[in-house]
Amino acid sequence: MRIMILGGWGYLGWPTAMRFSNEGHDVCIVDNYHKMALEKEMSVEPLVEPLNMRQRISVWKSVTGNLVKAHVIDVGSYVVQKIIERWEPDTIIHYAENPSAPYSMLSNKTAISTQRNNIESTLQVLFAIKDTDIHLVKLGTMGEYGTPGIPIPEGWVSVTKQRGNGSVVNSKLPFPKLPGSFYHASKVADSTNIEMACRLWGIKATDLNQGIVYGTGTKETESHEGLHTSFHYDGVFGTALNRFVAQAAVGHPLTVYGSGGQTRCWLNIEDTLQCVSLAVNNPPQPGEFRVMNQFSEIFSVSDLAVKVARITGAKMEHIANPRVEEESHFYQASNTNFLMLGLEPKLLDDAVIEGMFKYVSKHKNNINEKKLQPLVQWK
Amino acid sequence: MRIMILGGWGYLGWPTAMRFSNEGHDVCIVDNYHKMALEKEMSVEPLVEPLNMRQRISVWKSVTGNLVKAHVIDVGSYVVQKIIERWEPDTIIHYAENPSAPYSMLSNKTAISTQRNNIESTLQVLFAIKDTDIHLVKLGTMGEYGTPGIPIPEGWVSVTKQRGNGSVVNSKLPFPKLPGSFYHASKVADSTNIEMACRLWGIKATDLNQGIVYGTGTKETESHEGLHTSFHYDGVFGTALNRFVAQAAVGHPLTVYGSGGQTRCWLNIEDTLQCVSLAVNNPPQPGEFRVMNQFSEIFSVSDLAVKVARITGAKMEHIANPRVEEESHFYQASNTNFLMLGLEPKLLDDAVIEGMFKYVSKHKNNINEKKLQPLVQWK
Repeated sequence: MRIMILGGWGYLGWPTAMRFSNEGHDVCIVDNYHKMALEKEMSVEPLVEPLNMRQRISVWKSVTGNLVKAHVIDVGSYVVQKIIERWEPDTIIHYAENPSAPYSMLSNKTAISTQRNNIESTLQVLFAIKDTDIHLVKLGTMGEYGTPGIPIPEGWVSVTKQRGNGSVVNSKLPFPKLPGSFYHASKVADSTNIEMACRLWGIKATDLNQGIVYGTGTKETESHEGLHTSFHYDGVFGTALNRFVAQAAVGHPLTVYGSGGQTRCWLNIEDTLQCVSLAVNNPPQPGEFRVMNQFSEIFSVSDLAVKVARITGAKMEHIANPRVEEESHFYQASNTNFLMLGLEPKLLDDAVIEGMFKYVSKHKNNINEKKLQPLVQWK
Repeated sequence: MRIMILGGWGYLGWPTAMRFSNEGHDVCIVDNYHKMALEKEMSVEPLVEPLNMRQRISVWKSVTGNLVKAHVIDVGSYVVQKIIERWEPDTIIHYAENPSAPYSMLSNKTAISTQRNNIESTLQVLFAIKDTDIHLVKLGTMGEYGTPGIPIPEGWVSVTKQRGNGSVVNSKLPFPKLPGSFYHASKVADSTNIEMACRLWGIKATDLNQGIVYGTGTKETESHEGLHTSFHYDGVFGTALNRFVAQAAVGHPLTVYGSGGQTRCWLNIEDTLQCVSLAVNNPPQPGEFRVMNQFSEIFSVSDLAVKVARITGAKMEHIANPRVEEESHFYQASNTNFLMLGLEPKLLDDAVIEGMFKYVSKHKNNINEKKLQPLVQWK
């Protein structure tokens, strides 16, 4: 299969590229180092500086003999259509979006740049595949749903209502979204645009509502030191578990936002690859907008901190919540679609946390402790 | 009251400005003639060229003695925050968005410019009022809902589900949206951003899901020939009734898209002013995102054409539908909120159509017949 990965230099993009390349697919990555520009703007850095695309591809070729193609272009630009036309992918995996909720809440400038970058990259891809049978696999987030107080299905909901004439009818509609940041709202806007494009144009797309990813790498990233992926531990790009492990590594307390009762969906980066592979290999029908919730487990932020504290010996500290979010709430979500397709969740056990702790500790001199705190207030 | 009208030069904006000014309010309009740039790009023009803002304000002052203030700036720019800070409005009425569904479906360029213009103008306004008690009254569209197959409530829906433990719970959630163009999707994205800003920041906003407006003017626009508003009859910016009347005026058949069974919500431009006034005078509580469906009547496109044909003697012609939309569908929508606030709908009777026909016929030499046809295909 010919697989194009937009955002192919990123934390998830590069491991995804290597996985599909390893499996014998033709892989082309597209990235413009936009995330690095955002890091520069926020004065943060990944734990270990990654090689650039050319260098990584060269290492990958020396290790496996496989050639990965690359283009340094902005997916939001008009060039992307030409690249897609020329390379003729069967599937496009679209990760090329600004991934930070805190960054999007910093100011009107960052809210606008997040929504512009994310929405316009998706619009360019939709127009590029309008008259093709390319399968779009798009990364969204479980954060689009927020905490609605009822069980979260996979994208669609059946609503039963009485019509004016008394008859009772049922309609399948997109499940309502309650995003918690302008970043999350950008993904909601993407979902709206993609659902509409499937309905109006007959294209086929899979929207992956992904939980919070953790992990330092995959079997491919670990196969050579030049192949590791960008690991963020900071208050802007670092997700909770990655940040906790970095705090433990430098002897900093694990900073839990508020009570820590915020309950979320989680998955190992290995499960991201497993799910994306299942999505790619099981495309929807033309005109179908398929939504799959992509996660392996559900637990609260404080449960997570307790696990990390137990294994690493770190202390826990509850700090004022920089976000506006419910800290005590009902949460239940379905991931039946992936389980039916054969997902075998890799659970967060002690060995996983120990492995992460070991990796991060090895590089702990690179950690800038000032960046472990929340850097953005929601209000 | 101090009322700022964004998009105050437009078809609805200018009549709204004069109405509030007439009622003794302080009015400030903001517009950057962006709509005129879009008209230029699409080679279309309003039926009668409107005066510019300075000229209109001068005529209005000579007729009423009232001074309307104006700023020529892009609402999507960073300047808007300063303007709002300095002028200190009690209410902001936000019309400053690209209003054309066909334009948004033309290409990736126009889809992106529509979403960028609309979403970013709303984001700038949200950040500008973040720490104020300014009431935002935002123009959305009934087209955000699409044709969901069940009765359309006003913005919110109660969903009842069984939780995992067997208990049955009820949650009030945003009603799902099924927009029919990238323009409509831009308004959905606005609604998402505004609802979130109310929830996270405690601001107060009213989202007006407006039906399709018709009419050549209001009592203020008719009070002096320099005060008339922009009337569009073309396939890009002209709404169905306005276009039908223009076709009748030049002896062109009324072109019904497809079967004409598409059922929509309609209102007279006088009712837009009535509704906006009710919204302004009945603000929601801080933190409340209030949604009101703004229309007076519901009927199908072919019913509308039959009315116009009967009164004007024009013929009807069913042409291939340039849009992708259901032509035979269930449709029921609520406008209870406005009726409860006292809306007295001005219905589409024969006299209204006769009045429009008379006005358009007077200017029929300005009509470019080539522009009466659909200018954009959805597919």
